[in-house]
Amino acid sequence: MDPFALVQDEVSIVSERLCQSIVSNVPALEQAAEYFFRPGVRGKRLRPTLLLLMSSALSDQQPAPELLLPDHRPPHERPQEQRRRQQRIAEIAELIHVASLLHDDVLDDAETRRGISSLNAQSGNKLAILAGDFLLARASVTLASLQNTEIVELLSRVLEHLVAGEVMQMSAAPEQLTSMAYYLDKTFYKTASLMANSSRAVAILGEQQPEVSDLAWQYGRHLGLAFQIVDDLLDILGSSKQLGKPALNDMRAGLATAPVLLAAEEQPGLISLIRRKFKGGSDVQYALEMVQASNGIQRAKELAAQHAQLAAQQIEALPASSSPHALAAREALINITHRVLVRSK
Amino acid sequence: MDPFALVQDEVSIVSERLCQSIVSNVPALEQAAEYFFRPGVRGKRLRPTLLLLMSSALSDQQPAPELLLPDHRPPHERPQEQRRRQQRIAEIAELIHVASLLHDDVLDDAETRRGISSLNAQSGNKLAILAGDFLLARASVTLASLQNTEIVELLSRVLEHLVAGEVMQMSAAPEQLTSMAYYLDKTFYKTASLMANSSRAVAILGEQQPEVSDLAWQYGRHLGLAFQIVDDLLDILGSSKQLGKPALNDMRAGLATAPVLLAAEEQPGLISLIRRKFKGGSDVQYALEMVQASNGIQRAKELAAQHAQLAAQQIEALPASSSPHALAAREALINITHRVLVRSK
Repeated sequence: MDPFALVQDEVSIVSERLCQSIVSNVPALEQAAEYFFRPGVRGKRLRPTLLLLMSSALSDQQPAPELLLPDHRPPHERPQEQRRRQQRIAEIAELIHVASLLHDDVLDDAETRRGISSLNAQSGNKLAILAGDFLLARASVTLASLQNTEIVELLSRVLEHLVAGEVMQMSAAPEQLTSMAYYLDKTFYKTASLMANSSRAVAILGEQQPEVSDLAWQYGRHLGLAFQIVDDLLDILGSSKQLGKPALNDMRAGLATAPVLLAAEEQPGLISLIRRKFKGGSDVQYALEMVQASNGIQRAKELAAQHAQLAAQQIEALPASSSPHALAAREALINITHRVLVRSK
Repeated sequence: MDPFALVQDEVSIVSERLCQSIVSNVPALEQAAEYFFRPGVRGKRLRPTLLLLMSSALSDQQPAPELLLPDHRPPHERPQEQRRRQQRIAEIAELIHVASLLHDDVLDDAETRRGISSLNAQSGNKLAILAGDFLLARASVTLASLQNTEIVELLSRVLEHLVAGEVMQMSAAPEQLTSMAYYLDKTFYKTASLMANSSRAVAILGEQQPEVSDLAWQYGRHLGLAFQIVDDLLDILGSSKQLGKPALNDMRAGLATAPVLLAAEEQPGLISLIRRKFKGGSDVQYALEMVQASNGIQRAKELAAQHAQLAAQQIEALPASSSPHALAAREALINITHRVLVRSK
């Protein structure tokens, strides 16, 4: 059972609202904001998929058919129905995610994104910064429409975390560069916080008890950590599409990720390379050899698997349900914890 | 009576909270965010001053002494007292304003701001973008603490307007470049929306009737327009400090502001220069001469005066009050409408 198939139609509704919600009376802005919402460039919509599955996993009732039809209300109009409100969390999470991609690409001077030219490369840094700001503003307006200030606070904290994670990465002191704890904190801020806090928001809108909201939060947190560690592994191992050739973008950018940090525990020679951000002539190549000669890769795989397993355990700990609808969604959420481990791009 | 003196102590409390609220566990970020909150670089705190005066103008009661002492609650903790909540609007408005300055300076490649090196010039674009994002995130968290989603929506719209105004400026079509209506729309978005909507927020927190909130909104709108038109005039007339030498930064950046647009109604030769964004060899000098030969400057002064007067009229239309406290604040708000017209820097 493909977990993406289970909520595919509903994800399309959210995508359609995303395209609507960026309609603006300023054409240049609309064009820019739309850039990542075009069909084919949308990415796999992992966050909306997760969040809609979580909505189902916590509900005995299947969404009524009318809730699976497009919702044409403007972003600031308040929806009353629980499921519509949960769909808005999926929409907001994707708006924040895409905004952070736009700003990250400016920060990294990235030239491509999702297989096409990045917005900054195509239209300049200015428009990319402003388009990101615009999506964040739209996220705030939509967030306000939910009329729930606990949720406004949760999602505002995510923004703060995204920034803090990026700055932690930019400004790490030498001893922080080699610290696994620092890496995990940064990774929580940069990747897992959005998944954790938006999952909690979905549970709160589903009127769940605090214990259940905590499980949802932990699911998002552990899945996010597993996801990012695998991402970092792929940068070193290479994706299958690229015939196993590693990209090594992280090391080239001066970043030591989980496999390297774990390797350094066995290969102290790595420490000085990490601290000088792999800036010496053949540092990257030399570091790669030391990583390959260690158990760093194996241990990073195990770490990702642990987090994936912890994510799955949160779902298993949810209150018992006899609803086939909820059970299918739970199975899909567990399935996703396996999928993040075996993905190859 | 100096209107700034009337709420000076309370503005200091807001300033202190601003410094507190940017405390972060990421030192590089704190340093960056703090950049514009240091004493001496704070600017005149126009927005907090306005908003605290508006709070007083709409209240019969002087704030209790304990509300004029610093408030050490974290930004997400909910204050119950009405005046504290209004102080938070002053704080949020300043956070949004400074965030927009940080992003604007990146967009404009500005080298200085408020007499010191700009953050982007000193620490790079990355940190300046992230510091701006961080202040916006802090503004959202503080906003959420007010537990009033109407106000979350008002201030989220301001963000959207700031972006829309900037993009309107960047992407104007040739016929829009010469349109006074387009200029005024853009100016509302870029400058007046924050003043208008935060004034309304203060009135709403003061539990005022919708008619009164509308007056507060119109006050902010007209004051913001007057303020910006005078700013644009000073760029052409020169400030007294600069011995009357015009800066002409706007024209050099390709922008035609109110005096130029009004001059063009008499001097059709200006139109082609505006449309080519003053990019020809001596366009700026030539345009300046045409403006000086027209009534553009006089008419722009009159336009600013009209908006200042309309702002003052909103205050005069407020419900009668016998509170000396409220009356002094109202007088100060009217005084500010005069001051924006005669300022020279």
